[in-house]
Formats: sequence, C-alpha cells, structure tokens
Amino acid sequence: MIDTITDLPALRRHILEWRRAGLRIGFVPTMGNLHEGHYSLVELARAHSDRVISSVFVNPTQFGPSEDFTRYPRTPEADMTGLAAAGCDALWLPTVEGMYPFGVELASNIRLPGVADVLEGVHRPGHFDGVCTVVARLFNQVQPDVAAFGKKDFQQLAVIQQMVIDLAYPLELLRGEIVREADGLAMSSRNQYLSAQERATATVIHRTLRGMRDATLAGTSRLVVEAQAGLALAEAGFDVDYAAVRTPDLAEPSASSEAYAAPGPRVALIAARLGRTRLIDNIEFDLR
Amino acid sequence: MIDTITDLPALRRHILEWRRAGLRIGFVPTMGNLHEGHYSLVELARAHSDRVISSVFVNPTQFGPSEDFTRYPRTPEADMTGLAAAGCDALWLPTVEGMYPFGVELASNIRLPGVADVLEGVHRPGHFDGVCTVVARLFNQVQPDVAAFGKKDFQQLAVIQQMVIDLAYPLELLRGEIVREADGLAMSSRNQYLSAQERATATVIHRTLRGMRDATLAGTSRLVVEAQAGLALAEAGFDVDYAAVRTPDLAEPSASSEAYAAPGPRVALIAARLGRTRLIDNIEFDLR
Repeated sequence: MIDTITDLPALRRHILEWRRAGLRIGFVPTMGNLHEGHYSLVELARAHSDRVISSVFVNPTQFGPSEDFTRYPRTPEADMTGLAAAGCDALWLPTVEGMYPFGVELASNIRLPGVADVLEGVHRPGHFDGVCTVVARLFNQVQPDVAAFGKKDFQQLAVIQQMVIDLAYPLELLRGEIVREADGLAMSSRNQYLSAQERATATVIHRTLRGMRDATLAGTSRLVVEAQAGLALAEAGFDVDYAAVRTPDLAEPSASSEAYAAPGPRVALIAARLGRTRLIDNIEFDLR
Repeated sequence: MIDTITDLPALRRHILEWRRAGLRIGFVPTMGNLHEGHYSLVELARAHSDRVISSVFVNPTQFGPSEDFTRYPRTPEADMTGLAAAGCDALWLPTVEGMYPFGVELASNIRLPGVADVLEGVHRPGHFDGVCTVVARLFNQVQPDVAAFGKKDFQQLAVIQQMVIDLAYPLELLRGEIVREADGLAMSSRNQYLSAQERATATVIHRTLRGMRDATLAGTSRLVVEAQAGLALAEAGFDVDYAAVRTPDLAEPSASSEAYAAPGPRVALIAARLGRTRLIDNIEFDLR
C-alpha cells in the first residue's frame, strides 16, 4: 500500500526523513483521475530520483467561474491503486483549507507576465495564476529535487519552467511525453466527458496537428497553416479556441517575424471544444 | 574575512555543504547600508542557527517610480566589515540580472491581498509586491531554516509572515526589536538623508508614538488618538501619510468594531515625510 499523507506536518516529517537519508526526491503533482499519462510521469520521476511522491489536488484557483471544477472527475481509490502499481512511494493529499490557509479569496497570487498571457492565457484568464500559485505551494511543501509535468500541457510546462528559473526554485523539471490512445487522442481526464460520437470526432485534433506539422515542413506559411487547421476543426464540429504554430517559447510571432522564419524547433498547438468539453493537444517538430 | 558569494551556483554549493553537515541556516536579508538594527538581526539569527548568511540587494521592484532607488545609500565595504564583526558567516550579493533573469518587466510577481493593501500599501502601491517577489526568490536561493526581519517594518513582517504561511515556505521567521538612537529615533538607512534641522525634528515621531500608546491606554478613542497624532506631526513640519492604531493583524477597524474595542495587543504606526525623506516607525503595546 502507498503511504498517504494528509497534513503538512506529517509531510514535512516524511520529507525530512528522506533528506536525512540522502535520498533524491521526485515529485509528480496531479489533479487525480489518473491515467497512463500520469503513470508515465511517475516512471519518469522514478528514473531521476530515489523516492517518488505524487500529489492529488483538484485546485479551485485554476478553474474559471464557468469551468468544470465541481464536476471534475474524482477517483481517489483507483488513483491510489494505480500510483502504488506505478511505483510511487507516497501520496500527498492536501485539503483546500490546508492549501489556502487564508482562504481562496485572500490567497497569495503568483502572476507571470509574458508566456502566461498568450494562447491558454487569452482563453482561460487567471488559469496560470492559479497553476503557479498552487505549484509554488506544492514545491515548498514537498521540496523535491525533480518534478515531472506532461508535455500535453505544453504551455503549462513553459510557464512553470519560467517560474522555476525566475523564482530560483532549487529543482529540475522533467518533461513527460504525451501518452495517446491507439487512435491518437491524447489521454486526458476530460476525455470521459465525451459522448460516443464526440469521442470519435476528438481524433480529428491529433490528425489536424500532424497536418499542421506536415504543411509547415512543406513550406506553407504559418497563417495559412493555422487557418486551414481552424477550418478543419470547425468543419468537424469543434468550437476552436486556437490552432497555432509557435516557437517553443510561445512568443507571439509578428507577420514578418525573422526569428519565426528561421529553422529550429516548433510546436503546433490546438485548444478546441466539443460540446461542454474543452480539449488541448500539441505536437513538436523541427523546421530544417 | 566574510565569505562573499556573487552567483547562484556558488550559493547553492555553499548551502548544500552546510545542509550536508546538518547545520541549521539563519538568514538576514538586507538592502545594505547596514546599521545596528541590521547587526542585531544577525545576532538574533545566530542565536537560532549554526550558520548565518546575510544578503545585500537594493531591490528595484519594491521602489515606486518617484522613490529613492537610485540614490539609496550603497556602502558595500562598510557592510562587509560590519557583518564580519557581527558574526555573519557569508554574504550573498545577487545582481539585478541574476535576481530577475527575465528582466524586471517580465518578473514573476507575488501579490498578497488583504494585509498588503492597507497603510503602506495605500501610500506605496506595488511596494509589497516587490518585497514579496524578492523575498520569495531569496528564500528559494538561500533555503534558510530561520529568517530574521526587523519590527521597524512592522507591516512588512506581517506581509512576509502571511506569505510564508500561505505559500508553505519551510522556515520560521524571527522578529527583531527596533534599535533606536539615544534620542528615540528608530535607526534607518534613510535617516542620513535628513538635514541637521530635520534630524532634530525626526524625534517627534517616536515621541508621538508613545503619546498614541499612552492616550489609547488612558481610554482615548482610536479616531481621536489618530487625529491628535496627525496634528502633532503636521505642526512639527511633517507631511503625514498615516498615524494609526491597529490590532497586530493590521485589519482596518470599522468605527464600531467590537474586536478593536476588546483588550489585547495593539500597534501604533506612523509614516511621515520630512522634505524628501519618508520615515516609518511603530510601537507595540497591550490594551488591558
């Protein structure tokens, strides 16, 4: 059975024990409802540390007022079994009151200008503030040497990487590959919101991303690639937030951007809604 | 001679060495131009740790656009000698570029609602954002077990205490007593801005604070105490930002506040300007 920790003093004792034994601590923060994507992060953290601790916390401050905080799937029993099977040593289960001792309204807020303001930042205002404010707390609670996040949330990784460097957190980020279903759909807790018909349609996202990559590599201009992708998604029945090709820093390219035209790494990103369900995905590639 | 550290990797090696030896680390962050008030914090930290490290960093993000960032007194040689004499083991001297790797404009910003919005927060908008954002970085860089701050900046201590609890920093704050000149003026780097005549006038602040305490203890109502203090300061030639009596949480009392009327700890606080120089001071007491 996995060691389950529910209060901060107990967590601190646990961490101190590991530290005193000279063990390297790996951390995998999650919102629960775990799937193969999460378990691959546990394995990644394991490969870079002596002990792996995961957290399950559905963080209210990163959900917008009209988003799915209350209906977000919570499956604590299955998560515990899965984490133990994946080789996780301990599970940190903070409460909302423990995470926000002054209340959510009076919570210290961490705001990153720049990378947090584009793409998701436009469509989910305040989302990355909530992410940063909870991840900063989790880092201070767990004090890991390495922390693993999935590449499916590409921009989240960019935001957290900037926060780690800028606030000088003494830890290294690990970037976990996207885990996909057999038909290409990126694994996500939100996939289970989809009806059977929506689930079939959802595969269009990954297909469209591959098309964006291939068209870019074939020399099609960024604006045409983005417009074609938006059209394909809309025709399939999606309400599109964005379909974008960017350099990995996610800087907004100007139409005539020299930096953007130069060879180098690229990422195509999509956020689109099917009914009430919002899905995101991305694909990385190299422009030669 | 004191060990002077100027880059983050060197600091991390230093800290790791102390940690591995099982030593408890005390930290005294400063803006330099050190005086007896700072050295008393080094002694306080010493009493609660095995090694004391101090930092000197004049933090641009906590100064307003019309404030004294550029003319703030910088005395690195004297600081080093003084710190060594006070028993400080190491001195951390970050650069602005090292502290803000993405630049000051793109710095991750930490904002506390509530305690940061009153008193100083009204008169120095953004000041505590700058304080929190630099102190959070310093805590992540130095990773101290205890950190000492002076009570002269009473509200700063309240803000940092809230940030430490809310963001779950694994450290304890030490609160250093105010160190005063023989005539009662609280020691401050900004005292040296004062002309001889202003320096003589400046003693009115501490005298007024004692008057506020005595009047409150004698049963004079808060609003009368505050108005009398404001008048005394104005008559002495001060431009008054505030003269306030508060409970230590610095909550704004309503006129009819029951909590405020109850016995318990109080603090009287003054912020006032003499010419271009802004001075703050406070006095704590118990209402029985």
